[in-house]
Amino acid sequence: MSGPVANVSLNELMAEMRAEVDVALEQALASRKAIPTRLADAMRYSLLAPGKRLRPLLALLGAQAVGSDRHQAIHAAVAVEMIHTYSLIHDDLPAMDDDDLRRGRPTCHVQFDEATAILAGDALLALAFEVLAEGLTHLSHSNGYFTPAVVADALRRLAQAAGPEALVGGQALDLLAEKEGGDLEKLQTIHRGKTGAMIRVSLELGGISGGGTSLQLDSLQQYGNSLGLAFQVVDDLLDVESTADAMGKRTGKDSSRGKLTYPGLLGVDASWEKARGLVRQAEQALEGFGNAAWPLVELARYVLSRKN
Amino acid sequence: MSGPVANVSLNELMAEMRAEVDVALEQALASRKAIPTRLADAMRYSLLAPGKRLRPLLALLGAQAVGSDRHQAIHAAVAVEMIHTYSLIHDDLPAMDDDDLRRGRPTCHVQFDEATAILAGDALLALAFEVLAEGLTHLSHSNGYFTPAVVADALRRLAQAAGPEALVGGQALDLLAEKEGGDLEKLQTIHRGKTGAMIRVSLELGGISGGGTSLQLDSLQQYGNSLGLAFQVVDDLLDVESTADAMGKRTGKDSSRGKLTYPGLLGVDASWEKARGLVRQAEQALEGFGNAAWPLVELARYVLSRKN
Repeated sequence: MSGPVANVSLNELMAEMRAEVDVALEQALASRKAIPTRLADAMRYSLLAPGKRLRPLLALLGAQAVGSDRHQAIHAAVAVEMIHTYSLIHDDLPAMDDDDLRRGRPTCHVQFDEATAILAGDALLALAFEVLAEGLTHLSHSNGYFTPAVVADALRRLAQAAGPEALVGGQALDLLAEKEGGDLEKLQTIHRGKTGAMIRVSLELGGISGGGTSLQLDSLQQYGNSLGLAFQVVDDLLDVESTADAMGKRTGKDSSRGKLTYPGLLGVDASWEKARGLVRQAEQALEGFGNAAWPLVELARYVLSRKN
Repeated sequence: MSGPVANVSLNELMAEMRAEVDVALEQALASRKAIPTRLADAMRYSLLAPGKRLRPLLALLGAQAVGSDRHQAIHAAVAVEMIHTYSLIHDDLPAMDDDDLRRGRPTCHVQFDEATAILAGDALLALAFEVLAEGLTHLSHSNGYFTPAVVADALRRLAQAAGPEALVGGQALDLLAEKEGGDLEKLQTIHRGKTGAMIRVSLELGGISGGGTSLQLDSLQQYGNSLGLAFQVVDDLLDVESTADAMGKRTGKDSSRGKLTYPGLLGVDASWEKARGLVRQAEQALEGFGNAAWPLVELARYVLSRKN
């Protein structure tokens, strides 16, 4: 585990980046004057709810790891947080997980209404592509790295991670698994889709925004795969172990609804062991980056110590 | 009105293009093996339901109008039909318009379930961007027209048309207008968002896929604006005049729910007059294209004579 000095630095850096991301999220909504008021309110309510901002931070740190200014990835950061927020809004709907509490506040359909929540999710999903496309336009003006193929590929990657073979597919399998049960393989498939794909693409889009080589993008992808899975294992563990107060959402709910979880399938101790192994793999994937990737190394370790 | 010979030609051409589009839609789903079965079934059920395929036809004809092979726009055609279908699935949900019949068949949430319908819509929205990004990648390999800025701009246009300032925003305003009422200006704002933006962007993406000049894209945009509004006025008129049998969905429902409609605000005769004026404007916008745009000219006239 990392020493206290490095931890303080990571925490300070994360706070700084979160503030940057929140400004950019706010700006991405405020600059779109033609959004109907109630819809804009619902989008802002969910998008700017207090959160870890894990995915946007990974995008910024991905750009930094490949040797670029992290601000080059700010559009990618906004885009991935928009897609993450859309998925939370839709997952919380009565027809889906039927959650009334999220990030310590009423969920979008409780605070507004169901129709508005569906539309706010739809809106954030579409807007993510608009924001990323705009960002890539800016980047391509000043940098020959951004060929037509690179621009199209970046947007394609985001669409694939958000789509039916990843994020949406994972949620569909998750809902089915509640009824049908399943094994470790199915659980991993669900998590690769529901959590892994967006975590991985956040890093990839950060790396692309920073002009990374394909070798660097591969390394970020490997890091993302391990980190995403570690994150989900710890999420399952926190659901078992923590209190509703610390998590800001109802806990113990996963197991009471018969959701597949790592502690449910492997037990608590073996799940922690798995998480530690994944974090080691994540660190190894970063070896080629040297010091530019120190925050990603620290972040992987931080996953093991997080409380919510 | 056009003579019978030209009409037959348009009908034949439209049937041919619909068949091409349906093959491409089928292929776009079938090639994605990792979509969970039930989700893939729901996506296919709604995407391949019998329909006019107006938007994909406009994309193909937009490419043809600017002097290109229409097949260059097949990815754009698939993308816009996916987004149109997503919007129908979500609009039909119980929390929204609560429709149980669409294109003569049970709506997606009736045939499957509400969660699956929400996810199928989400999936089609994300997939549209993946398909268009792939298409632009292919086009950019062989043609210098597709600069990074053109590629990003095409995807940005699609996102904007599908997003909270257009398609999603229009639906949000429409739901609100049911409660609050409104005037002709509000109705036009709703329709520009709900119908107009996607019709216009279908033509634009067709024109871009065909390598059109910015002057040509402007003309397609003007044509799309007029056509989209004409289409919606006629849609409202058909809702008043036709039977549920011919439309394949419940009719008269708009007015019984207090929805704003053109015949409701202007009366039936003035609405038909408005539609005819819009179709004339649409034809005028095409004057610079010459014979390459004859199907778009015919299509605008066809809007006035359609029965469903």
